[in-house]
Order: sequence, then C-alpha cells, then structure tokens
Amino acid sequence: MMEKIRVAIVGYGNIGKAALEAVAAAPDMELAGVVRRSARGEMPAELAGVQVVDDVAKLPGVQAAILCTPTRSIPQYAREYLTRGIRTVDSYDIHTGVWDLRQELDGVARAHGSAAIISAGWDPGSDSVVRAWLEAMAPKGVTYTNFGPGMSMGHSVAVKAIPGVRDALSMTIPTGTGIHRRMVYVEVAEGHNFADIEAAVKADPYFAHDETHVTQVPSVDALKDMGHGVNLVRKGVSGRTHNQLFEFNMRINNPALTAQILVACVRAVMKAQPGAYTLIEVPVIDLLPGSREELVKRLV
Amino acid sequence: MMEKIRVAIVGYGNIGKAALEAVAAAPDMELAGVVRRSARGEMPAELAGVQVVDDVAKLPGVQAAILCTPTRSIPQYAREYLTRGIRTVDSYDIHTGVWDLRQELDGVARAHGSAAIISAGWDPGSDSVVRAWLEAMAPKGVTYTNFGPGMSMGHSVAVKAIPGVRDALSMTIPTGTGIHRRMVYVEVAEGHNFADIEAAVKADPYFAHDETHVTQVPSVDALKDMGHGVNLVRKGVSGRTHNQLFEFNMRINNPALTAQILVACVRAVMKAQPGAYTLIEVPVIDLLPGSREELVKRLV
Repeated sequence: MMEKIRVAIVGYGNIGKAALEAVAAAPDMELAGVVRRSARGEMPAELAGVQVVDDVAKLPGVQAAILCTPTRSIPQYAREYLTRGIRTVDSYDIHTGVWDLRQELDGVARAHGSAAIISAGWDPGSDSVVRAWLEAMAPKGVTYTNFGPGMSMGHSVAVKAIPGVRDALSMTIPTGTGIHRRMVYVEVAEGHNFADIEAAVKADPYFAHDETHVTQVPSVDALKDMGHGVNLVRKGVSGRTHNQLFEFNMRINNPALTAQILVACVRAVMKAQPGAYTLIEVPVIDLLPGSREELVKRLV
Repeated sequence: MMEKIRVAIVGYGNIGKAALEAVAAAPDMELAGVVRRSARGEMPAELAGVQVVDDVAKLPGVQAAILCTPTRSIPQYAREYLTRGIRTVDSYDIHTGVWDLRQELDGVARAHGSAAIISAGWDPGSDSVVRAWLEAMAPKGVTYTNFGPGMSMGHSVAVKAIPGVRDALSMTIPTGTGIHRRMVYVEVAEGHNFADIEAAVKADPYFAHDETHVTQVPSVDALKDMGHGVNLVRKGVSGRTHNQLFEFNMRINNPALTAQILVACVRAVMKAQPGAYTLIEVPVIDLLPGSREELVKRLV
C-alpha cells in the first residue's frame, strides 16, 4: 500500500480552490488541511469536513505545502515553511525575481534538509520548459511567447488603483511576435469622468507601450472568465539546417492549470535533494504518479 | 576558459552527417573524430580534416560518443563504449524495447562509472517529454500523436524487402486522432508486375491495418525529402476542470533535428550520475550551454 503525501494548501483564492480539487483528484496525496490568515468568518461549502487553520503548525504531519497566497507574500511563507522542514511549491510569477528567490530559498532549504520548487505555474512554469526545449532543438532562432486572450491580473490591479475606477479588468490579446493588445474594461464610480480614467490608463507604465483600448461597462463582473491561453512559436536552426518550425498552443482555465502543475510538483519536491529548483531543473518524470517502468513504457 | 567536451560520432549516415554539423555549431564541444565500420573508400568532402577511424580506441580522449548507427546495432555499441568509460547518447527508436535497453545499459554504465541517454531523438525523445508534460498538466484525457507528412524509414524498408521492388518510399500522412494513411511509392524491377507488388504491400503487417495507397513511379529518389512533422494534441482535465486544450506542432528536417537533440544530450550525459536515462528523466536545463543563472534568468 502506497504512503500518501500529506499536503497543506496555503491561501484560498482562485488557485487555492483549484488546488483543493487537484489534490482530491490525485491518487497519491491526502489533504492535511487549508491554512488561511482569517480562518474565521463564513466557510465555503466545499471546505466542509476540511481542517481550516490559521497556522500550519496546527495541522499534523504536513510534508508539503502548496503556496497559493498572493505572489508578493510567497517568499516569506516559503522561508517559514522550509525552515520548519515542510517542502514547498509555489507559482511565484515575477519573472525578474525568480533567480534571486531561487538562490535565497536554496540556502534555506539546504540548511533545513528541505526542498522547494518555485515559479511552478504555466508562465513562469511549463512555458519555461517549452522555451528551454525549443532552444535545445534549434539553438539559433527567435522564440515568441504570445499570451491570451485572457485576463491579466497585474494589469487589472494597475487599473483598479486609478482614482474613480470602481472595478476593472484588463484582457491580454495576442497580435503575434510577442506583441499584445490590452482591452481594458472599467466601471466608473459616481462623480468621476470616463475620459480622465481612459487617459490615466493609457499613461500608466503598465499600458504606455502597448496598444490599449479602454471601454466603460456597467458591470466588470459580468465579463470575468478564467480562460487563458498561450501560443509559443520558434523558427530556428538545428545544426546548419534552417527553417525548423515549432509551435506550442494551449487554451485553458488559468487557475485550474496553475493548481494542477503545483500539485504535480508536490510529487517532484518530495523526491528532490535539499535545495530550491525552477521547473527547467526538474525531470518531468518526477511530476507524474506511477512507477518509472510504467511511465517510460507508456510515454517514451 | 571552458574545457570543451571531446565528442566522437559513430556511424555516418544521414544522422551522423547532421551530427557533424551540430557538433561544429556547438560552442562547448570539439569533434574527436568519426568512427565508421569501413573507414576506407571514398571520403565525403566535409570529412576533409576530420579523423576518420574504424575503432574509437584510435581517437584520443573521447569523453562522449553520439551513436548514429542503425537502431538495431545501438545496444551493442552502447555496451562497448560504456564499458570503456565513454558516455553515450543515441536515438534508439524501437518504442517497445526502450525500457529493457535502459535497464541493461543502466547496469553497464553504473558498473563502469559511465552514463547513457537513450532514445534521444524526437519520437521517442522530445515528443515523449511533451506527452509527459501534457499528462502532468491534465492527468485525465487522451493524447494523440499525429506524425507527418514525412518518410517512414521502417515502412520504406519493409516495402523494399518485397520481391520485384527496386526502390521504395513510404510517406506517413496524419489523418488525426493518431490514425495515419500510408502513401507508398515504388520502382518496379524489370520482369515484375506492379499489381502483385501492390497486393504484397497491402498484405504486409506494416500496412495491413492502415489505409494504404501504392503508386508506381519512375524514380523514388526524385521524391525524397527529409522534412517531417508532428501534431501532438491533448484534451483533458486539470483537477476537476474539463476541456483543457493543448497542442504541440513541428515541421522539421528529420535528421537535423534528431542530431541536434543528440548533441544537446551530450551536455546532459556529461553531467549525469552513472546510469542510463530516457529524456523524460533528464532536466531540460542540462541540455543547454551556459550557466544555470543565465539560463534561469532568460528562459523561466
């Protein structure tokens, strides 16, 4: 009989909810519980029968934690959990901060005999692995990562910060060669002027360099859809042979895919030597349940 | 200054030729020489200045060998080279034999402190990695691997073995959901009947279960093109979320891609612990030149 991995979910937003479903669907894991800063208040129906606590120390025998908190608080949670000897996976998504976080957590994890897999969503994450593979297959050439159509959380938050915006949503629309159009939808608060908001959005550093269209809508909530996608293309050279053409496409529910990759990485982090890793440093076989023999025979 | 990896190319058919180009283009490798069974006879122009020998022992300081021999002789070469402490990479492509070869070479490599990466072409190879990743991202669902259009070596050889066939080529045409049409082109030898050959092709176990069309042509050579491709699709479930859609496409020169992947794997096999590995067991970062820091910063 297989020992199941005891997993805690930390944070309960969109990704935390999807992680709950993905852990339940994993044959080799059991949920220790959910950690929320505010464990009081109303409880969603799907958490009935789930241990919900405000500190992971209240959950016995946790081996791995899926960090589903906002990205900026991930480093702090990861340090704390790794120090307690709990392995962590996260989808930290600030591309420019990945290497520093990896280096810092690598030290913490080694010092405490623990391990972390960081930035393990789809971008950074599985897209990073595709980009690395395309470069291995055609070392010379250009790769374009085209995102969307789908909501950009970072851009939406930037619009919400503009005075007079009651709610906002920024959609990322790919126009090819890694260039994106921004379709911004705003609810305008009483006593504010749409034209002022439109100008402020277009002047914001998040939008100033992209083709941006701003539209006033009565309800932003009515537009929300968690679908997203990517089109990743490379045209390059293998050896001395030009015009090698590669393409990776996906159309997916965003939090569901992120959570599924995190759950797959729980398996890998349990097998890892002490340290911190990005997904391009992890063999894909470690992400899958089942024996090495069965996986090689079925997938290779 | 970087120590370059000293590489031997073993076998000099289409893949061996492409490997010569890919090694020359690799910043971190130098060619020790080419091993051919018949090192005598006429020498292709591009081998001027290259050490060509009939035994790898005649090449000093070889660290890794790229095995470009016919697939059936790969196990014997791999055993011999690993026993001498030379690391090997190959594109052994008999899917049903991969696990047994991995197990056998794993023992040989460990006994001699060496390492092998096997079945490291594009299928088995990079496609295997894509299949494994798609399953990590959507554990439930179906993956279809659609090959072509492109020449199938195995099927072409089967046709050539039929009496009365002077030359033959079998093209694999994808019709979706992993089902393929076979377009077979034959040159008929003097005194033989096309209708008999057509019937023999369609009765052959290689073709009996596929839609097969046989055409007589004056010259098979005039049809030869090394282009090939794949369309790999999965529709599946992440957690409890259905309709997650994934697709990987490539249109490539076949020997050039195979050779480039083999050359990338030379880097990985130099970093590997003693043993034998398939590509799903290797972190992709090990396939690329450059520092870990530079690669993570650029690709993740």
